[in-house]
Amino acid sequence: MVLYEGKAKKILRTDNENEFIVYYKDDATAFNGEKKAEISSKGILNNKISTKIFENLERQGIKTHYIKNISEREMLVKKVDILLLEVIVRNITAGSFCKRVGIEEGIVLDEPIFELCYKNDEYGDPLINEDHAVAMGLATRKEIEYIKNETLKINEVMKKFFLDMNLKLVDFKLEFGKDKDGNILLADEISPDTCRLWDKDTNEKLDKDRFRRDLGDLLAGYEEVLSRMSN
Amino acid sequence: MVLYEGKAKKILRTDNENEFIVYYKDDATAFNGEKKAEISSKGILNNKISTKIFENLERQGIKTHYIKNISEREMLVKKVDILLLEVIVRNITAGSFCKRVGIEEGIVLDEPIFELCYKNDEYGDPLINEDHAVAMGLATRKEIEYIKNETLKINEVMKKFFLDMNLKLVDFKLEFGKDKDGNILLADEISPDTCRLWDKDTNEKLDKDRFRRDLGDLLAGYEEVLSRMSN
Repeated sequence: MVLYEGKAKKILRTDNENEFIVYYKDDATAFNGEKKAEISSKGILNNKISTKIFENLERQGIKTHYIKNISEREMLVKKVDILLLEVIVRNITAGSFCKRVGIEEGIVLDEPIFELCYKNDEYGDPLINEDHAVAMGLATRKEIEYIKNETLKINEVMKKFFLDMNLKLVDFKLEFGKDKDGNILLADEISPDTCRLWDKDTNEKLDKDRFRRDLGDLLAGYEEVLSRMSN
Repeated sequence: MVLYEGKAKKILRTDNENEFIVYYKDDATAFNGEKKAEISSKGILNNKISTKIFENLERQGIKTHYIKNISEREMLVKKVDILLLEVIVRNITAGSFCKRVGIEEGIVLDEPIFELCYKNDEYGDPLINEDHAVAMGLATRKEIEYIKNETLKINEVMKKFFLDMNLKLVDFKLEFGKDKDGNILLADEISPDTCRLWDKDTNEKLDKDRFRRDLGDLLAGYEEVLSRMSN
């Protein structure tokens, strides 16, 4: 039974009330849904890539919703209530940050930028700050502090993970959820839909910017990421 | 000699290289300059109101650029290099925060919200967070921490100052500058152009929202604020 259908995934109930299934769809969207396409087998690639990333994060001690991969497009996860926060980390300038303040893309940052957005399609997932998040009741001050610490740890793990396959982790988006005991777990997906990944030597973009900016075959980029993970 | 002409003020050089004159104009602008008008004697009112606020803040130990009032429209100030940051404090929801996230106006916040914007007309003074400000070199981490502490102190002083005249300080914008010795001083103006002020009993708006939203005579509001200060 479909509990929720998003732009790139569906969340399905299971017989176990503490577990959900994440089903990866082939839909690609950008600019808050303004640009859309169906890209055959993208869901399969993202499920495989997400699986490898979650398994690596779990090995490094990060608490995530991931339980196991159960089919080509399906991942079994712990049931969480998703916080209405999009957490963004930037290691190199790109995307909305450049557009917002008129900064060039590709500047390597001295320290990572941690950003919060309000997860709300109607308002275009607007940037907010920690005070806004607390005032809006999206999370407590303490929860945000925990999320920030976890996120910076996750960034270190993921930067290394990708660098080992000659990829630069430019930026990425995370979502967190609360399990039945109130624990905050890393949730959602982690894939080239949610990470900017550039080849370390050529800066070739192997992520969703290929779709956003018509930079060439999206799947070829995602397949390249997956193939480097498998080596 | 005019050093800089902004939307509502001019900054003039003086014979003393460490002092500037702030000249308050009659121009009213809103929505990043899209809405404009000249409102005869607004500059005189804002100079008087700003003077009273700076004098009160100085009495309470806040370091500001204010030296003295020298004419109807002119204030002598210490020369500072303005930081490209707009600092916003919110005690009650209103304005851009409501618009950005779809929250109702008039909600009293449990604790003040501290916001930073990048002072840049071309980009519409966009909201940023502290990491952005540091990455962009707008201020150091330490300077931002100092500004935040000062701002929260200023908020307490100003809330009390206005409450004593039966006004609610809804939100306000501050700018800070650095003097020749590197000290950070509160600068710019503080007036109903930069503060939202509501009557405590009726919630009547006595600030620039009268102009932004065509809520009636702007001057009458500003004159009411000044007259309450003079009592």
